[in-house]
Amino acid sequence: MLRVGVIGTGMIGRDHIRRMTTVLAGVTVTAVTDVDVDTAKKVVEGLPGATLHATGEELIADPAVDAVVVCSWGPTHEQYVLASIAAGKPVFCEKPLATTQEACLRIVQAEVAAGRRLVQVGYMRRYDAAYRALKQVVDSGAIGAPLMMHCAHRNADVPAFYEKESAITDTAVHEIDMVRWMFGEEITAARVLIPRRSRNGGPLQDPLFLILEMAGGALVDVEISVNIRYGYDIRGEVVGEDGTAALGELSPVTVRTSRQVSTPVPADWRERFLRAYDGEIQEWIDSLAGGGTPVGPNAWDGYAAAVVSDAGVAALRSGDRVPVVLAARPDLYAAEAVLS
Amino acid sequence: MLRVGVIGTGMIGRDHIRRMTTVLAGVTVTAVTDVDVDTAKKVVEGLPGATLHATGEELIADPAVDAVVVCSWGPTHEQYVLASIAAGKPVFCEKPLATTQEACLRIVQAEVAAGRRLVQVGYMRRYDAAYRALKQVVDSGAIGAPLMMHCAHRNADVPAFYEKESAITDTAVHEIDMVRWMFGEEITAARVLIPRRSRNGGPLQDPLFLILEMAGGALVDVEISVNIRYGYDIRGEVVGEDGTAALGELSPVTVRTSRQVSTPVPADWRERFLRAYDGEIQEWIDSLAGGGTPVGPNAWDGYAAAVVSDAGVAALRSGDRVPVVLAARPDLYAAEAVLS
Amino acid sequence: MLRVGVIGTGMIGRDHIRRMTTVLAGVTVTAVTDVDVDTAKKVVEGLPGATLHATGEELIADPAVDAVVVCSWGPTHEQYVLASIAAGKPVFCEKPLATTQEACLRIVQAEVAAGRRLVQVGYMRRYDAAYRALKQVVDSGAIGAPLMMHCAHRNADVPAFYEKESAITDTAVHEIDMVRWMFGEEITAARVLIPRRSRNGGPLQDPLFLILEMAGGALVDVEISVNIRYGYDIRGEVVGEDGTAALGELSPVTVRTSRQVSTPVPADWRERFLRAYDGEIQEWIDSLAGGGTPVGPNAWDGYAAAVVSDAGVAALRSGDRVPVVLAARPDLYAAEAVLS
Amino acid sequence: MLRVGVIGTGMIGRDHIRRMTTVLAGVTVTAVTDVDVDTAKKVVEGLPGATLHATGEELIADPAVDAVVVCSWGPTHEQYVLASIAAGKPVFCEKPLATTQEACLRIVQAEVAAGRRLVQVGYMRRYDAAYRALKQVVDSGAIGAPLMMHCAHRNADVPAFYEKESAITDTAVHEIDMVRWMFGEEITAARVLIPRRSRNGGPLQDPLFLILEMAGGALVDVEISVNIRYGYDIRGEVVGEDGTAALGELSPVTVRTSRQVSTPVPADWRERFLRAYDGEIQEWIDSLAGGGTPVGPNAWDGYAAAVVSDAGVAALRSGDRVPVVLAARPDLYAAEAVLS
Repeated sequence: MLRVGVIGTGMIGRDHIRRMTTVLAGVTVTAVTDVDVDTAKKVVEGLPGATLHATGEELIADPAVDAVVVCSWGPTHEQYVLASIAAGKPVFCEKPLATTQEACLRIVQAEVAAGRRLVQVGYMRRYDAAYRALKQVVDSGAIGAPLMMHCAHRNADVPAFYEKESAITDTAVHEIDMVRWMFGEEITAARVLIPRRSRNGGPLQDPLFLILEMAGGALVDVEISVNIRYGYDIRGEVVGEDGTAALGELSPVTVRTSRQVSTPVPADWRERFLRAYDGEIQEWIDSLAGGGTPVGPNAWDGYAAAVVSDAGVAALRSGDRVPVVLAARPDLYAAEAVLS
Repeated sequence: MLRVGVIGTGMIGRDHIRRMTTVLAGVTVTAVTDVDVDTAKKVVEGLPGATLHATGEELIADPAVDAVVVCSWGPTHEQYVLASIAAGKPVFCEKPLATTQEACLRIVQAEVAAGRRLVQVGYMRRYDAAYRALKQVVDSGAIGAPLMMHCAHRNADVPAFYEKESAITDTAVHEIDMVRWMFGEEITAARVLIPRRSRNGGPLQDPLFLILEMAGGALVDVEISVNIRYGYDIRGEVVGEDGTAALGELSPVTVRTSRQVSTPVPADWRERFLRAYDGEIQEWIDSLAGGGTPVGPNAWDGYAAAVVSDAGVAALRSGDRVPVVLAARPDLYAAEAVLS
Repeated sequence: MLRVGVIGTGMIGRDHIRRMTTVLAGVTVTAVTDVDVDTAKKVVEGLPGATLHATGEELIADPAVDAVVVCSWGPTHEQYVLASIAAGKPVFCEKPLATTQEACLRIVQAEVAAGRRLVQVGYMRRYDAAYRALKQVVDSGAIGAPLMMHCAHRNADVPAFYEKESAITDTAVHEIDMVRWMFGEEITAARVLIPRRSRNGGPLQDPLFLILEMAGGALVDVEISVNIRYGYDIRGEVVGEDGTAALGELSPVTVRTSRQVSTPVPADWRERFLRAYDGEIQEWIDSLAGGGTPVGPNAWDGYAAAVVSDAGVAALRSGDRVPVVLAARPDLYAAEAVLS
Repeated sequence: MLRVGVIGTGMIGRDHIRRMTTVLAGVTVTAVTDVDVDTAKKVVEGLPGATLHATGEELIADPAVDAVVVCSWGPTHEQYVLASIAAGKPVFCEKPLATTQEACLRIVQAEVAAGRRLVQVGYMRRYDAAYRALKQVVDSGAIGAPLMMHCAHRNADVPAFYEKESAITDTAVHEIDMVRWMFGEEITAARVLIPRRSRNGGPLQDPLFLILEMAGGALVDVEISVNIRYGYDIRGEVVGEDGTAALGELSPVTVRTSRQVSTPVPADWRERFLRAYDGEIQEWIDSLAGGGTPVGPNAWDGYAAAVVSDAGVAALRSGDRVPVVLAARPDLYAAEAVLS
């Protein structure tokens, strides 16, 4: 039974606690902390035997904590991840790994110095059944070498605090991680094209069209539409030399009424990726059994996503093609380990 | 944490143990027994702290067992379920509840005598996301009152011990339970029509066409094809007054190669209903928290399925329409509780 | 250029005239007649060079008429078809060939006496691209021998004059012809099951469930729903030994709005089968070039449909399984010619 | 009955002759010519009453020719179209209207001087049922204002003479015309991105990714894959403010075999667009009845396609974004007439 301490009891933190206490196997939540002490108190009341800590550092040091989950405010991620590494404890950090690429690189360096992989980052698409089936077809060679990928990331709407660059840093960052994993390659450049603006987006430039170049020459395009009203819709088609493979439709029911055959579209990412979140945490728990190493998105993945995201933001601002410049990849993250 | 004892460590028993130890939350397997002592021994070795019992009755009596899961050979179900009821312990019994309708009725009567619902039967389709989405549409009234349902139950192949009547008792029995739940009504008659025989079925009469009449007049037809080679395919469409609703296609990936757009079909029921089995046991566990009552298919459902199954077998043998004659339904299984 | 005379200028007659003058090649309408002289007059005014005849017999005798199209009231079909045969002129007769099976048989006998095939009956489904693609898959052996076929014939609504038996004689008669062609076999028995009645159908028993037995043992089921509101929907799936093949979805556009992915359903049979009607008449015209023989549904097909339809009506009235008893098939309609 | 003269009896010329003699209504082919006299002779032998002309000019002057169809070698299009305009005869010219934008502009100017629209260009996608259904949804406002369109143009393979620039000039030119019609706007700039090269394309750069900017700001992307082996696949999805609309799947049959649900993909453009070619010519014929004006793609459309195609080629060579610079649009081609 893995004993987990959770830093941050906001929406996503509480959701992971619910998951670890009522859905998943082999895990118990033994410690909790949050800057908002009242919320944290309420949460801990629902967790028999769990300790409320005053700080993240205190929680990390708790001997009843085998592994740490970081769901706090983004700017605090770096310190808690570094503290976990320093304590030699596995840490699952919600995305982003840190809010700057420099901070991400410091985490990478700390982990390299520690000599073993302790960090996993919360990019959950790799755990989605449809993405996995897609990758399996691509990897099987059935469509030949992959040459392009067409993606669409569509939200019905976004909250008021969503900013111009959020389309890259919060939204497309999921595709950024996903295509590195799908192609097993780094991204080498980014470009953003600007379509006509939707009336639904207010002052936002919405939609955007992000174009990513892969190290092997493949081209990825991502439509980012975050106020498209009709629902939450994630689409992806890999174009190979001999055919294509796309995310399936996944509709549980087909209805014939009112002159239409219709299938439902999810309302939001919770509905669409619920199972992927479950799988992400369950596989993380399982990977740690007996002192094992996490196999999901690692610190290098978190760093690379940050660098590509920065390039995407620069491309959005300048209108130019912006190269992605990564530090040398440490041996700890050899290609086979990182991207497969 | 619910402490469960498992009677029967054959394929399905081991699968439920795997599920309860590595997939689900809030449960621990504390006791195990099987007539095949060697197998049971091996299983218990992988379960730290679990006890190996010599008999099911001993297991049921174990104070470290809060609830019982019965996965033993069908003819033994009755005795273990009755023993569990006698011990006042919740019992999850794999289908069938018992091998005769008389035995099922004895269980119903024992439960009624005990004065509370302790028994759940393993009809897992009610937990499948597609069936639930379908029922939700039907219950919403979006297609008007349901008038017919077209079903197909297709297996790629069946094992050598599969017999003529297995098409009803082992295969269509899933649809029998499902339509009672879908329509919220009892089945009142069964009829079996005999199509041309497939060369794939050897001496078996395969396929069959089962027709069920619902209490409210709706008609259900079930194609039962158990050697159809192409895969495991479960289909269902409810025809209402104003439209229809059908199980969705649920394909994780769409592939375009070799002059075709194609999506995969599951190989077997394990692949198709994996999540339904998980949900079935998780919801059973959750329902028992704090001494609660199970809300899944109950003893009456198990009895009704047995009676309809017997009518189906009689219809297969005679070629006639065979009425379904049920005992009076005890108040313990009021309609709203039983079938919704 | 085939010179056609049209008997009957009601809705379907005018539609065929429109088709032959503005859509199809190699045909000209040279003569017209109708009991409603005013309508016929108006029609002929739009047809430069065409003659208005007082009677069908006069039209058939017109030397400027190479071939006859009969679209008059059903009870008059027999006399015009017999007159055409007597005149040695090819005749395309809208369904039904005649209103009784006895009349149909008289036509068959007259044609046999004439010694060559002159009659084609207007069963247009054989010309539908989807049915043809379906038959091609079945005939290819890709799904093994066909064992069952599931059909649905759904109308949004029906006119006020639609009667109880119309569900068989007007609606399911299309499936009756189609399955004889699809399986290349006669139908040997019919049975009608009665589901719960739709509130949309007023006094009608709607829907019905028609079950047909094929000579080779295959079983065909047809849901007949004629007030299902959501649209006109024709479905068919052939179940073979190794797989199935079904009519495709044929949706020209896929729309994502309002939490749904949707495709349109046709409003009525005109929209669904427009192209099939065009193909039916074009292929009839082409088959007659140089004195050729029509290759579409022939007098025997029209007779067989009538006999099966009668059996269906008897089955509807009695609730029994009613055998189909056909006259001996004359050599003129050898199996290979008739049904492939 | 429209009397048509056909210049050019190569593959496409013979196909249009077949269409006008055996498929369509209201048309007869009265004259034919080709530089390859032997081929033309053979063709005319199959056309009773038709005249074989020595030159296109002679054919255009033939009083038995009401309208001209130009299917000759591209570089000769200009002279025959200009001669038809000079003769005051409607002319249907296969794409391209002429091989340079300057030549296209000369045709536009000649038509303007003639004071009426006589020219139609053979862009047949506007006649495809799926594209029309798509445009109808877009025009209905159901998805809000269109902001993007994602297209894919995929060929299984291309002939040996296909060159680097053919991907723009022969292949994507169909999308170029289609999006001008779909959006009712001119294209203002083109850009070509270069993905990893397919091993199937030999020395060709295949695939390409063409990006077009519309006058109203919408962005169109076109994947051009011309050696993708699996079939001929034309896809298009318009992304609007509130939803999307895409070309439907149009599969006539759905097959379940070998662990797959599959639908067929067309082999080539003939199969995919057969009906669109029929409709294109039939509507052209119908539009000319009684001296009417053709309503399909006009000389301005042919010119605009040429200018955009040139910009696309320049973009392919330079890697830059290349603006589209059109001459002033003459009143003869007012927006409402041109693009709707």
